Amino acid sequence: MSAFDELLAFQRQTEALSSVAERLAWDQETVMPRGATEQRAEEIAAMESVLHERRADPRVGEWLDLAEPEDDEDARIIDLIAREHHRATRVPAPLAMELARQTSLAQGVWAEARAKDAPQDFLPVLNDILMLKREEAAALADGGDLYDVLLNDYEPGATQAGIAALFDAMRPRLVALREDILGAEFQPAPLLGHFPQETQLRLARACATAYGYDWTRGRMDLAVHPFSSGRWQDSRITTRVVETDPFNCIYSTIHEVGHSSYELGIDSDHAFTPLGRGVSMGAHESQSRIYENQIGRGRAFAGWLYQRMADAFDGLSVPDADAFYATVNRVTPGHIRTEADEVQYNLHIMLRFDLERDLIAGRLDTDDLIEAWNARFLKDFGIAVDRPANGLLQDVHWAVGLFGYFPTYALGNVYAGCLNAAMREAVPDLDQFLAQGDATPAVEWLRENMQRHGGLYPPRELIERATGEEISEEPLLDYLEQKFGAIYGL
Amino acid sequence: MSAFDELLAFQRQTEALSSVAERLAWDQETVMPRGATEQRAEEIAAMESVLHERRADPRVGEWLDLAEPEDDEDARIIDLIAREHHRATRVPAPLAMELARQTSLAQGVWAEARAKDAPQDFLPVLNDILMLKREEAAALADGGDLYDVLLNDYEPGATQAGIAALFDAMRPRLVALREDILGAEFQPAPLLGHFPQETQLRLARACATAYGYDWTRGRMDLAVHPFSSGRWQDSRITTRVVETDPFNCIYSTIHEVGHSSYELGIDSDHAFTPLGRGVSMGAHESQSRIYENQIGRGRAFAGWLYQRMADAFDGLSVPDADAFYATVNRVTPGHIRTEADEVQYNLHIMLRFDLERDLIAGRLDTDDLIEAWNARFLKDFGIAVDRPANGLLQDVHWAVGLFGYFPTYALGNVYAGCLNAAMREAVPDLDQFLAQGDATPAVEWLRENMQRHGGLYPPRELIERATGEEISEEPLLDYLEQKFGAIYGL
Repeated sequence: MSAFDELLAFQRQTEALSSVAERLAWDQETVMPRGATEQRAEEIAAMESVLHERRADPRVGEWLDLAEPEDDEDARIIDLIAREHHRATRVPAPLAMELARQTSLAQGVWAEARAKDAPQDFLPVLNDILMLKREEAAALADGGDLYDVLLNDYEPGATQAGIAALFDAMRPRLVALREDILGAEFQPAPLLGHFPQETQLRLARACATAYGYDWTRGRMDLAVHPFSSGRWQDSRITTRVVETDPFNCIYSTIHEVGHSSYELGIDSDHAFTPLGRGVSMGAHESQSRIYENQIGRGRAFAGWLYQRMADAFDGLSVPDADAFYATVNRVTPGHIRTEADEVQYNLHIMLRFDLERDLIAGRLDTDDLIEAWNARFLKDFGIAVDRPANGLLQDVHWAVGLFGYFPTYALGNVYAGCLNAAMREAVPDLDQFLAQGDATPAVEWLRENMQRHGGLYPPRELIERATGEEISEEPLLDYLEQKFGAIYGL
Repeated sequence: MSAFDELLAFQRQTEALSSVAERLAWDQETVMPRGATEQRAEEIAAMESVLHERRADPRVGEWLDLAEPEDDEDARIIDLIAREHHRATRVPAPLAMELARQTSLAQGVWAEARAKDAPQDFLPVLNDILMLKREEAAALADGGDLYDVLLNDYEPGATQAGIAALFDAMRPRLVALREDILGAEFQPAPLLGHFPQETQLRLARACATAYGYDWTRGRMDLAVHPFSSGRWQDSRITTRVVETDPFNCIYSTIHEVGHSSYELGIDSDHAFTPLGRGVSMGAHESQSRIYENQIGRGRAFAGWLYQRMADAFDGLSVPDADAFYATVNRVTPGHIRTEADEVQYNLHIMLRFDLERDLIAGRLDTDDLIEAWNARFLKDFGIAVDRPANGLLQDVHWAVGLFGYFPTYALGNVYAGCLNAAMREAVPDLDQFLAQGDATPAVEWLRENMQRHGGLYPPRELIERATGEEISEEPLLDYLEQKFGAIYGL
């Protein structure tokens, strides 16, 4: 066996083990008995320790030195494994294990604190995790910027400065659009009523099927904070149900179908190689966003959904498909990021981006975090945070150590804007299919032009190959102004 | 750290990883999408490879050499780890991996073959697994008996000869009892009707609760072949539903609660040490059997269950609790081991014991297995096998490589007989509780006298400490003759 083949065979097992660790995390958030948190923390720590040892294995270093790529694909594989190896050799094993253990335990603490609206139960734990993440970043940064290092775990190639510049370019047009919308004369009606859980879940399944979600390689369960999990032959989605708001369940589901479709859409020759996963969180989020928003909240699909919902719930409080379309895209003041509309969503991200940069830089203590959150929220959104569950406690991300992750959501929106423009040009009759509840022509275009490549190209290159254009915030902002301008008569 | 402490710390992580592998197997049989079999096989193989490497790790050998036990408990821990280490160093890693991979794949093949009644789809796969198991046994046997080696994986200390002698002692009394019963004038009525799945599952939950099953450390799901899975803080049960036969679901559930209770009943200081698991399959089965049969099919608990079922299903086809008790213990000719009554069950085991001894010894080919099964079944049970799903294809065990496992079921029955005699003496008013649907005094006696010790004592010693008597088939046979003699008026 050549060094490259040995490297690949070893990596294949590492990928399988990392897939097991992911399945374990899924179990924890969906089906695990609540008394098992301590045990699960040890199990996850053990898995992370094994994964860490393998990624840092000196043999990997030797194979990397000797491996001779035959083509660009081999070179990319070597590059991705080298990146993991570098990360693993820089972060000491005990630190990696401790982080895995603490974040596993913190998840339960966060969920309880959120349920009880008791941030004081969560903040000390969050502080421990923050300290561990800073230690980890310092081990990796080589004197460079701590936040950039964390960001690169989720979006290779991105920088704090680049994202700050992007956000600066987006903010004025988003703020202006938001003000125009909130000041408009026409305001869509909310959807009123009681929508039983079972019917919502049935509709959510129908939506997933409309996007061609492969139920033989996936399933749907309930979770506090919806997520998708897994790759290749087993990528599962989760959703949640609020019986007064069916859009929560339906659009969460479509969002997670976007993530799972990306994984399931990767060429199966890439399975259990470093190319067999979505290439970055931003690329991932571009799929969930375009599924949810540009496709799922467009007029054509909304028309189909209106009819399905009216049938399922025996009539709706809005009179017709046009009114329904406006309701689906209703912009109102609100606290919760995951419930935010397309216009305000990125403002939620900007808040978290700035706070977490300050936390990592040591400019902000967790003791002062609630105050900082609430002050910034009031400033950006014009309303006060009424309770911690609607503020700091709404997201699980920091509890599980995901610092540097939030901006990838906004990047995903930007990528989705670019992809949508290209897709609409390439599939001009798409709306005719969407109006029939068939989103598969969109999924096929995305699969063919982006999803199937998995990790083959770096994120920016991937999107630029798919669209034939340089990445820019313009298509997203143009799309938002046009869509919401039409709905609100601006 | 002393060598013993280092050994213990290393083992703790191995135990956590083995718990993960068990959780993965649970996932496969309950919630996994059906298109994921290939991926799951690789995941399980990767986990087994890691576990194998750890158990065979030369450092473990060194620590074992240096470890100085301070007491009997330490000595027992060392002995159990040494046994695993010995096994792992004898079985070559590629063989262990191949076995894990093949048995994972075979499970799907078995399930499909069973559903389609197509043994020809399964037999070649079974043959591959048999060859691998023989290879494994040969690596371990050091020239000794192959079957004894496999048996010792499940029941340390047991031998083929000892079990054959035990079965020889049991067979005449069981056969005589069975003939008397089938020839008796009185025959209990079957339970007739249609019993909706949801109601059955609700009753099954109530039964689990009656035995004090801790739902904060467990859950219940559906599976083709019910099993229990997990330890410490997370031991889950599975069940199945046949809408014409509610006893299938209810007694499967109670049976699996017995297994899970044993794991959940182990002192938590033993968690993630080699003492933190049930000590043998026979010991395990003694718990599932005594929960299911001596407790669950006794007159007192049956009286309570009768009322619950009559309420839940709005009346039953049997007139009263006495008739219900006879129905619950009805002995009829049948093909399926898991549906067999207490009298005939052990005859099913004897059949499998003899066939698998022949398979392992090379005296029987898988090509001739169906014929051998069917001939022996006709001889032992007086009826022909009507279709392979009711014959060879009924059990998953061989498909997953469990040769030498079946006899532990009968051993479990023998142990349960011993435990029941001692428990009834120690808790004379037990039936008063059982009649109220409260089996917890029995569970408490079993926990205190047996379950809590986990792996601390070898199986025979464990049972003999709990009962104060030598193990013998007499209490089981006495109990069966008395109980069924009374029911059938013999």
